[in-house]
Amino acid sequence: MRANNNKAAIIGGGVIGGGWAARFLLNGWDVSIYDPDPQAERKVGEVLENARRSLPALSDVSVPEEGRLSFASSIREAVQGANWIQESVPERLEIKHATFADIQSHCAPDALIGSSTSGFKPSELQQGAAIPDQIFVAHPFNPVYLLPVIELVGVEATLLRARDVLEAIGMKPLLVRKEIDAHIADRFLEAVWREALWLIKDGVATTQEIDDVIRYGFGMRWAQMGLFETYRIAGGEAGMRHFIAQFGPCLSWPWTKLMDVPELTDELTDMIATQSDEQSGMHSIRELERIRDDNLVAMMRALKGRNWGAGALLNEYDARVAPPLPTGIDKPIETLRRVIPVDWLDYNGHMNESRYGQVFSDAGDVVMAMVGADKDYIAGGLSYFTVANEIGYLNETRLGDVIQVRTQVLEAKGKKLRLYHEMIRNADGELLATCNQLLIHVSLESRKSCEPEGEVLARITALGEAQARLPRPASMRD
Amino acid sequence: MRANNNKAAIIGGGVIGGGWAARFLLNGWDVSIYDPDPQAERKVGEVLENARRSLPALSDVSVPEEGRLSFASSIREAVQGANWIQESVPERLEIKHATFADIQSHCAPDALIGSSTSGFKPSELQQGAAIPDQIFVAHPFNPVYLLPVIELVGVEATLLRARDVLEAIGMKPLLVRKEIDAHIADRFLEAVWREALWLIKDGVATTQEIDDVIRYGFGMRWAQMGLFETYRIAGGEAGMRHFIAQFGPCLSWPWTKLMDVPELTDELTDMIATQSDEQSGMHSIRELERIRDDNLVAMMRALKGRNWGAGALLNEYDARVAPPLPTGIDKPIETLRRVIPVDWLDYNGHMNESRYGQVFSDAGDVVMAMVGADKDYIAGGLSYFTVANEIGYLNETRLGDVIQVRTQVLEAKGKKLRLYHEMIRNADGELLATCNQLLIHVSLESRKSCEPEGEVLARITALGEAQARLPRPASMRD
Repeated sequence: MRANNNKAAIIGGGVIGGGWAARFLLNGWDVSIYDPDPQAERKVGEVLENARRSLPALSDVSVPEEGRLSFASSIREAVQGANWIQESVPERLEIKHATFADIQSHCAPDALIGSSTSGFKPSELQQGAAIPDQIFVAHPFNPVYLLPVIELVGVEATLLRARDVLEAIGMKPLLVRKEIDAHIADRFLEAVWREALWLIKDGVATTQEIDDVIRYGFGMRWAQMGLFETYRIAGGEAGMRHFIAQFGPCLSWPWTKLMDVPELTDELTDMIATQSDEQSGMHSIRELERIRDDNLVAMMRALKGRNWGAGALLNEYDARVAPPLPTGIDKPIETLRRVIPVDWLDYNGHMNESRYGQVFSDAGDVVMAMVGADKDYIAGGLSYFTVANEIGYLNETRLGDVIQVRTQVLEAKGKKLRLYHEMIRNADGELLATCNQLLIHVSLESRKSCEPEGEVLARITALGEAQARLPRPASMRD
Repeated sequence: MRANNNKAAIIGGGVIGGGWAARFLLNGWDVSIYDPDPQAERKVGEVLENARRSLPALSDVSVPEEGRLSFASSIREAVQGANWIQESVPERLEIKHATFADIQSHCAPDALIGSSTSGFKPSELQQGAAIPDQIFVAHPFNPVYLLPVIELVGVEATLLRARDVLEAIGMKPLLVRKEIDAHIADRFLEAVWREALWLIKDGVATTQEIDDVIRYGFGMRWAQMGLFETYRIAGGEAGMRHFIAQFGPCLSWPWTKLMDVPELTDELTDMIATQSDEQSGMHSIRELERIRDDNLVAMMRALKGRNWGAGALLNEYDARVAPPLPTGIDKPIETLRRVIPVDWLDYNGHMNESRYGQVFSDAGDVVMAMVGADKDYIAGGLSYFTVANEIGYLNETRLGDVIQVRTQVLEAKGKKLRLYHEMIRNADGELLATCNQLLIHVSLESRKSCEPEGEVLARITALGEAQARLPRPASMRD
């Protein structure tokens, strides 16, 4: 992947500067960092460590070849040969001016000089500069190595070059049309922050309650559609104009402590409705609802895997509603019954082959739990690992299908456990797939195979003996 | 899953009422809807259709058995025997008062009566009621069948009973400490909405730009940690107090059009810092950073599967940086090289067995693309389906491992394609897993097998013949 001789100079190596350094470095750029703080190398190292364990895994096709990282002893040394120079020094205008003067006396005249400033306008940053047009706002969001959006403010010709660079390293540059204090995003963050301070001061809510109302609610919507596309849906087929007509009156109500409100003239309503049509008009409201719902399901299920926020809530729910473990050991075991979610589909419009492995893995877990090899047992350092799977794909599985898995123990002797699973669609009884799964009991400490302990050994052996008396599943005899 | 005789009465069947109906119904409650609108049944039906295709798939263990749905011809009929009555009529106080009067003359005295109002306070709703304490605010967020948070405002004894009900149906009730206009969340939404109107009116940004700055940026953070936990991380090890000291001065700057600002007294700073410690103090900042990053990676990868927002951006990036397709056909093919992401791990702390299937499925896709069976070919109605996989798990795969897959074509004749994959860890050359994959060429229209067409058939046959001359992979001979 490394196919350039690009160099970025990072001036100021805190969390933001370190994030920029990681973004460039992991996209194959050489990076030189200047920061007079003696702790800078350690601090940047910590950010880089976080970035290396997360950013590369966003791609399904590439493995970044990192550029060279160096720490410079002066701005002069850092900016030598740099195509992009990123200033992330403290938010004081006189420090920024001195930094830009130092940068511009040593950098190439066509180098791009971005500033991470949250609040200053480019015209303020450019005051007294040798080449004012070279300096622009490139405002990132923490963590810079993961969140893609960058607000670009400055002279258009410069910004267009900056945009190309940022797009090439996977970011989402946004050219801001007019310079204003705090650009765009921080105006929202500041409005919310001010409102939050009032709620806490007035004893209406705690920090936890405010965070919960966001992350279990509108925060999930904003992660995928933002504000206007979300409200477009709320307006229904009548669209944005209807939404504004319906909720416009709230503007004059005391729904916020922050009361300077624009007048909802016909002109402003027209502007919003027209822009919203351009943005989302290619989808009907019905389509937007389904896109939104699929996004929400996929994100909430992703958080389920992390056991966090809305995902942790789903795990608690599952624990509460899960059926009791199967008990009868002298017949095939009904190990699973579930619905096929949208995040399991692939480009063929059916369940991806890998998710059959997920279903059978989950079914195997139920057998383990039946014999006492459950979460506590695993926490105690013992588990079963799958060593071989033979999956036969017999029929397609689709979104929303309710499926069940019937499992038979073929062999359970000592550390060896062989299961045979049949996955069946509820609606029509169709056999969708089969799996011959071989598991081996292991110590999670040594990562080596070993015999199950006491109770588990006794129960798995009994289960194996009872199941050995059953006829082979019909689908195995084919 | 259906283990109750609970009944919910839904008064007002729009998008919000329909969402409530779906939430109860899909959790096994009987639901009776009253709405004088002759279109109500159709409208609720549309919401239910959306809910049925998304809500059940949030669970990995349960399949909801739906309650009975009916449409009542009067409030009296709807509330008969109902434990929960939810009012979602238009936001006009006189309509709400009349509705509550009708409800209370016919419902059980211990029924819970929630209102979906965005703006009214419970004291306003309760004016003139027969049993004021029975009525409370239960404010949901659209789509009600997916977003879990509910703001509860009213008399505590009633709210505690309401909380139990909502938790049982998978929601996240939040007891609001004091009644204020617009409760909590809508104060934020309103503040952001007002700020957004100014930005559009002043020509600073369009609806699309505002949505992008949110969904590619802080919206992703808010979906998982909200406002304060996010800022706690920004404060670093010095914590919330440091963050406030650092960013407090912005409050007096013109960063928003909305300028009524609370004074940051020591007392308010203490309140926030203490609450934040209680909320997040069990994790170090380092831990919070990793939790945040893992959440972001998992959510962005989930959106990648939906090809939407931050996920669509990742897909564009992948398309740009993907290595060229392998060309040499007379040696084993290097089909894949990638990093193992956090959403592929399981409770054993290693890559889940199902994800090996994903890796080999992706490797098979590369062979397909090599012979011209690529996205366009699939869009044209032809593809390969996997019909059998034999996976051998030889070594564990861990977060961040760089792996590659070496693929050999064992057989390529007509519609039959057999591949053998070896998955290897880059760092130590360790063989992690093998897969014997049998694919069959199919028509996506008839979903039946058929011969590949022209060019693809020629190329796959040539590939098969060239590869047949290679020795069998070493791992196959074991």
